[in-house]
Parts: sequence; structure tokens; C-alpha cells
Amino acid sequence: MEVHGTPTGDQLAGAEVLYVWDHRFADLAAVLRRADRLRWVHAASVGVNRLICPELAERGITLTNSRGVFDVSIAEWVLAATLSFIKGFPRTLALQREHTWQYRTTGRLAGKRAAVVGTGSIGRAIADRLSRLDVQVTLVGRTAGADQTFGAVRGSDDLLSVATDVDMLVAAVPLTAATTGLIDAEVLAALGPAGFVVNIGRGPTVVESELIEALQTGTVAGAALDVFEVEPLPADSPLWSMPNVLVSPHMSGDYVGFEVDMMGVFVDNLRRWLRGDQLHNIVDPDFGYVRG
Amino acid sequence: MEVHGTPTGDQLAGAEVLYVWDHRFADLAAVLRRADRLRWVHAASVGVNRLICPELAERGITLTNSRGVFDVSIAEWVLAATLSFIKGFPRTLALQREHTWQYRTTGRLAGKRAAVVGTGSIGRAIADRLSRLDVQVTLVGRTAGADQTFGAVRGSDDLLSVATDVDMLVAAVPLTAATTGLIDAEVLAALGPAGFVVNIGRGPTVVESELIEALQTGTVAGAALDVFEVEPLPADSPLWSMPNVLVSPHMSGDYVGFEVDMMGVFVDNLRRWLRGDQLHNIVDPDFGYVRG
Repeated sequence: MEVHGTPTGDQLAGAEVLYVWDHRFADLAAVLRRADRLRWVHAASVGVNRLICPELAERGITLTNSRGVFDVSIAEWVLAATLSFIKGFPRTLALQREHTWQYRTTGRLAGKRAAVVGTGSIGRAIADRLSRLDVQVTLVGRTAGADQTFGAVRGSDDLLSVATDVDMLVAAVPLTAATTGLIDAEVLAALGPAGFVVNIGRGPTVVESELIEALQTGTVAGAALDVFEVEPLPADSPLWSMPNVLVSPHMSGDYVGFEVDMMGVFVDNLRRWLRGDQLHNIVDPDFGYVRG
Repeated sequence: MEVHGTPTGDQLAGAEVLYVWDHRFADLAAVLRRADRLRWVHAASVGVNRLICPELAERGITLTNSRGVFDVSIAEWVLAATLSFIKGFPRTLALQREHTWQYRTTGRLAGKRAAVVGTGSIGRAIADRLSRLDVQVTLVGRTAGADQTFGAVRGSDDLLSVATDVDMLVAAVPLTAATTGLIDAEVLAALGPAGFVVNIGRGPTVVESELIEALQTGTVAGAALDVFEVEPLPADSPLWSMPNVLVSPHMSGDYVGFEVDMMGVFVDNLRRWLRGDQLHNIVDPDFGYVRG
């Protein structure tokens, strides 16, 4: 049954499986209390911060997400935003609007150093593609450790030291207690005046007021943001008017046809469910994301 | 001796080596007639179309260029322009100026098909980086043949058929008789309404009036142009105002510090010259570029 908005008791009666289409849906706890047969909730998103609630563990309800669908599109968006910044495209387009031919020299991506915060499939896809373009990538995770692909993962408690050594910082983490406010004034100061910040995860990972100040004072050079503390970004946010900022309306992962691929992830899991097999992409509710 | 503008007879007296700094310099034939001891001309550019003249071969004067210096920067510029187009950044920036949050879905680069016209070091660097991002690349050269890196090179006499099969067409060729007007209305029609055109070589490779019409009528989807038939691009060119076109002022290769690297190419060759060794990057004046 397809439901728009919060489902009614009648609509929930007998339902065992709930597919949550809208990543902004935040009423799951209330729904669970009115759906006593519900066993499985699938999210049509990767970030599930709005769905995490004590009722999931208490009732033994499985939560799965759409991990994997957005890896390539988001990684390409990060490359697009970074290359556009390095090559000065916003300025080139501004000069083009004035029909002004103004030659400048710009930068190169190859040889730059990046830290990608987030070791999930999206963070890894970003790190992989930056590496393919000869960027030196440091992967940052919840805890430090060895890594098959990238040699090592640095722990996020070491972020300040990592930020000192890189030219760009990409946030690709789920929103959890540990990642809220992770990128703050101190980290931005460590990144430094040539530094570039990218956030494609969830807005509150970056302390927005501190980022705005860092951008205004030249503490960092620029930012590409697809997510914000409040979405839609309020019309009076200073971010809109900053020439060194790309404001993107939470769309970095959404390519033409993504809904079909996302439904494919659900259908594959539904087949497993009907066969009684283990589901893919099970979110650990204590961590707030798919582990391992 | 450093000379601004066209050198005088006194300035040329006794000179054996001429370093041409400005790629727009077009008086070489006249200079050669007044410099009877000149043996070697080095160009601080890769394209040398303005320097080719019968006097070079008649006098046995060696012409070398700066092949290699711009490979990475231009290849990255092509990625930047292509990804920016696919991800809809010009529209995102336009909406940002209006403080408008407007969610859209965009595209993915991976899996797309590209033809790169030009088998020199720049064309190969572009083809290589597109391949690294999972683009299927067809390399197009003067003549068809086998290729160690890309399996095969298609001949430019086959361009119409190649254009039919790809999503994007990148021109990275020197300006010669054979490449002038190579990309015309017929090729653009073959590329088709989703097609994207990039030119980083020399303007006259693309028939500009036919490209403008193709862009206006939707025969092709968009273009990123760093070179034009007339540079600076005249203020009344329709290209300036097209939302599906990036107008860049002949700067795709010029990164901060490129002058130092370019001088390095010359100094390396100067050492060879003084030792009597074979020079690098010798342009074949019959072809207008460095062969092999």
C-alpha cells in the first residue's frame, strides 16, 4: 500500500514491512507504536538519522538502508565540486555573464592531499576516485586501524592533526552523536587558508556558523555543501551569497533513474525476506549506520 | 636578450636561438628573414600553428614546442567542464544567486562514451583520465591504426561514424589544414541532442557558426570552449549568453607555476643544444606538431 505523509492506524493494520521513501520522514517511533506486526523498515536513503529510535531495538525490528546506490554519483559530485573550485569555474561563469574575457591561471588537483571522513561505501567511493586522479587520500573513520584498500584509517579523534596535513576535507559520515559538530572552528583552522571543505553527508556534521565565519575571514578558502543544518537552507543564510561556496540543494546523489536502482535494492531485500534469508544493508541502531 | 613585441634587426643580430613566449606571436617568417644565424626556435606553447612558415624548412631551422607541460592541467579542465555540465553546476550556481533551493536530479559520468580527437600527449592525458572515471573512450587520430594504450585509434575520416556512437566529443588537436573545420554541422548532428562538445585545442577546429546554431536548436546539448575562432571572443558572440556553454578565456592549461615548468622544458633543451645532442619536442613543419 502506498501512503503519503504519516500512515493512519488503518493503513498500518497488519503491515509487516515499511518502506520509507522520504529521507525527511521523522515520525517512525509514532508509527511503530501503532503497527504491532511491523518487523522490517527499509529506508530509501543511506542516512537514517531521523529513523533511529529506541522502539527499533526494543521491538527487534530490522532497519535496512539503500547503501551503495549513491556511491558513484556522490563521488562524481565531489570531483565535480572540487575541480570546479580548483579551476575557478564560478568566477569564469561570472565573467561570462558580463561578456568579459579575463585570462587567469588556476590550479591542479593531481598531487593535492585530501582527507575523506567516513569509511562507508560513499566515503570509500570518494576516496577511490580522488586517488584515481592522483590525489593523496587519508581515510578517517570512527577508530584508527589497518585498511585493505587504503593501507590505514586514521581515527576521527585524530582529525585535527589530519586536517593540518591536507588541502581538502570531505565529510561523508552518517549523522550520529559522534559526528555531530565534528568539523568545527578548530578543525577548520587546522585545515588552513588554502583549505576546501566538502559536505555530502548530513549538515550538522559541520558547525555551520563556524564554517561561515571561517569562510568570511579566510580561515579556509572555500566549501561545497550539499547538506545543511536546516534544509531547505533559509533564504537569509550568508552561504547563499558567498562566491567561494557552492550551495547545492541535497541532490549530490540523485541521478536520473536513481529511484529505479533504489527500488532494486528494496526488491532484492524483499525477495530475501520472503525466502527467510538474511537481509542486506542492516543498520546497527546503536551506531546509526551499516557496519563493516 | 628579452624582447617585447617583434624584435628589431639589432636585437636579432647574432642570435642563434629564439624563445617565443606569446602563443599569439605570428611574425616568425619576418623575423627569420632578418636573423641569418637563427638555428632553433622554441615555442612556449604546444600549438604552434602561428609559427609554421616555409622559411623553417627552407633554412633548416628547428622548431620545438612545450609538449607535456599542460597535459595534466588540461585533462583536469576537461573533467571539470564535463562533470560541471553533467551535475548541472551552472544552473545550481544560478539558483544560488537567487537564494532558491530547487532540488533536481542530474547525471553520471561513469558509463558514458567519449571520443577524444587528438593522439598527442594532451589528447592521451584526457582520454586516460576519462577512462579512469569509467568513461568508454574512443581515440581519434589523423589515421586509423593499432594503439598500445587504447587498443585502436580511429581515423578522423571516420569521425562522423564515431560521433554517432558517443555522448561527448573532445577536440585536442593542433590547428592544421586537416583539422580546420573538422567539427562541423554534420559531425554535430551525428553527435546528437544529448551530446557535449569540448574544445581545448584551437578555435578553428570547430566551425563556430555551426556550433552556435547546433547549440541554439538543440542539435547538441552543450559545449565547453577554451578556444575560439577569434580571441578574445568578441563581446557580441552569442556564445557568451548561452546557459549551456562554458566560455573560458584560453586558460585551460595554465596553472599557477606553469611558466616555471615551461621554462624547464626550454632549459632542458638548451642544455642538449649546447652539448650538441638531439632536441626534444621537435615539431615536424609538414604536419604542424610533434610526431610520434
